[in-house]
Amino acid sequence: MPSQPKYLTGDEAAIREFIDKFDIFLLDCDGVLWSGDHVYDGIPETIQMLQSRGKRTIFVTNNSTKSRDEYLKKLTTLGIPSGGVEDIFGSAYSSAVYISRILKLPPGKNKVFVLGEAGIEKELQSEGVAFIGGTDPAFRRDITQEDFKGIADGSLLDPEVGVVLAGLDFHFNYLKMAHGLHYLKRGALFLATNTDSTLPMHHGFFLGAGSAMAPLVNASGQRPLELGKPSQAMMDAVEGKFHLDRSRTCMIGDRLNTDIKFGVDGKLGGTLHVLTGVDNKEAWQKEDAVAVPSFYADKLSDLKLVA
Amino acid sequence: MPSQPKYLTGDEAAIREFIDKFDIFLLDCDGVLWSGDHVYDGIPETIQMLQSRGKRTIFVTNNSTKSRDEYLKKLTTLGIPSGGVEDIFGSAYSSAVYISRILKLPPGKNKVFVLGEAGIEKELQSEGVAFIGGTDPAFRRDITQEDFKGIADGSLLDPEVGVVLAGLDFHFNYLKMAHGLHYLKRGALFLATNTDSTLPMHHGFFLGAGSAMAPLVNASGQRPLELGKPSQAMMDAVEGKFHLDRSRTCMIGDRLNTDIKFGVDGKLGGTLHVLTGVDNKEAWQKEDAVAVPSFYADKLSDLKLVA
Repeated sequence: MPSQPKYLTGDEAAIREFIDKFDIFLLDCDGVLWSGDHVYDGIPETIQMLQSRGKRTIFVTNNSTKSRDEYLKKLTTLGIPSGGVEDIFGSAYSSAVYISRILKLPPGKNKVFVLGEAGIEKELQSEGVAFIGGTDPAFRRDITQEDFKGIADGSLLDPEVGVVLAGLDFHFNYLKMAHGLHYLKRGALFLATNTDSTLPMHHGFFLGAGSAMAPLVNASGQRPLELGKPSQAMMDAVEGKFHLDRSRTCMIGDRLNTDIKFGVDGKLGGTLHVLTGVDNKEAWQKEDAVAVPSFYADKLSDLKLVA
Repeated sequence: MPSQPKYLTGDEAAIREFIDKFDIFLLDCDGVLWSGDHVYDGIPETIQMLQSRGKRTIFVTNNSTKSRDEYLKKLTTLGIPSGGVEDIFGSAYSSAVYISRILKLPPGKNKVFVLGEAGIEKELQSEGVAFIGGTDPAFRRDITQEDFKGIADGSLLDPEVGVVLAGLDFHFNYLKMAHGLHYLKRGALFLATNTDSTLPMHHGFFLGAGSAMAPLVNASGQRPLELGKPSQAMMDAVEGKFHLDRSRTCMIGDRLNTDIKFGVDGKLGGTLHVLTGVDNKEAWQKEDAVAVPSFYADKLSDLKLVA
């Protein structure tokens, strides 16, 4: 059994030691900095404090509904200081980079069918990847008998689609899933920005990307290749971009199966679990815990004690 | 390993023996009689032949999108003779009967939140069960920030909902799933008309009820109690209604994990697997087959050989 994490809340000496141990903090967003559009108390000051001590803060999010530009806007609106768009790393960006630079789809089979929001589309565009689906209003409607027929016989499918990329889609519907299912049946590769089952919003939990794409997983019998946390494809991309020293890097997050596992599998110097999101501490106290953090705190702003 | 099924196609003597062995045939519909709105060749004559030999044909379907009345209309339109609405047994009806007669929900907690089509609503109405959701246009729209807030804090939820009943819904969306998820979190019972992952339509496979409700299963971490095939709650209901002698009854279907398992678990006199739907014969030839039929035929109309 791994050793139990060190509790930081209220322990000034422990917080100082924690902060001194790292140069870079990778920060999850939903459930750590905010819930939906509600920023948690003291978060801007906490991030400011870390930066003023010379730490680099990189925002690493699995939420694919926003592009990096939009995340920067959100951070700014909520008063959270950042080093600009370069310090933001989202699963939509990670997926777009994977498709354009690793997959290198052959001509004639190089389109992506998107199940997701504008964030994915913008990152695909920035990497020059052609796509259909996504926020196209043509897919935001009820399925008809003509659709069933044309999808089944292929006449309504685009023969150039070589990838189905699924992320969090607030507009999922039967029509999109039917298209996605038949692209998979015709051999398209199944990728996911992330598969978080839930999404913290307004102090409640809603459906995350993994739940939004569940109809496709269930009907196809296929599981997607994940490109967000905890996939080490994302860690490799983060490392390549920021040239980080893993031993001096800490991952901060609210979910064990994405954030903490991401940091543990990536052999980072440490991981900090905050209790403001999905998982409580019972999650790593149980014997079959998916990952155990090296530190935990009630909330990220508890670090402010040393400000 | 169970003995291998007897092959009936083209074997007149075997077909005669098969038919003589039973008084009642329970017939699955999708993938056996038709695919979508396309009736398979020779089906009306085959059913007619069975009835003319004094057999009772009961249509037992997991498709909850239609009520029994609507199924009767479909049978009639496609030229399939039946004994009327009484000889139709659907998972929507089975679910309505379970809720009204077995569950007996207490006053103040006796409403059903429906994820499904009109078939479920009609059967709940016929059993006098109050419900919300379903085909209500108020739920057929995008989710808003106000919805997130009101669902999370409960102000948009109906406190009288005690059951979430999910079936095949061609209009599933994020808003309905968010409601369903929060009813479950508040203790509502999770029921499903059926959990078939796929639906045969136009010679292709589309998303079945199990796939349509997959977001809710994935986000809640709960599995519903199933009331359609292969649930023996449905077999008990069929037996109670038709007073059948199980040893003289045969289940005919295209899916091993619903139809054939339904008949095998129910200790019927026999099961007939037809290859016009979801499963091929490799499905029961493999060692870990979920159920093995006692007979199989390429298609149901092969029985016509003895006409």
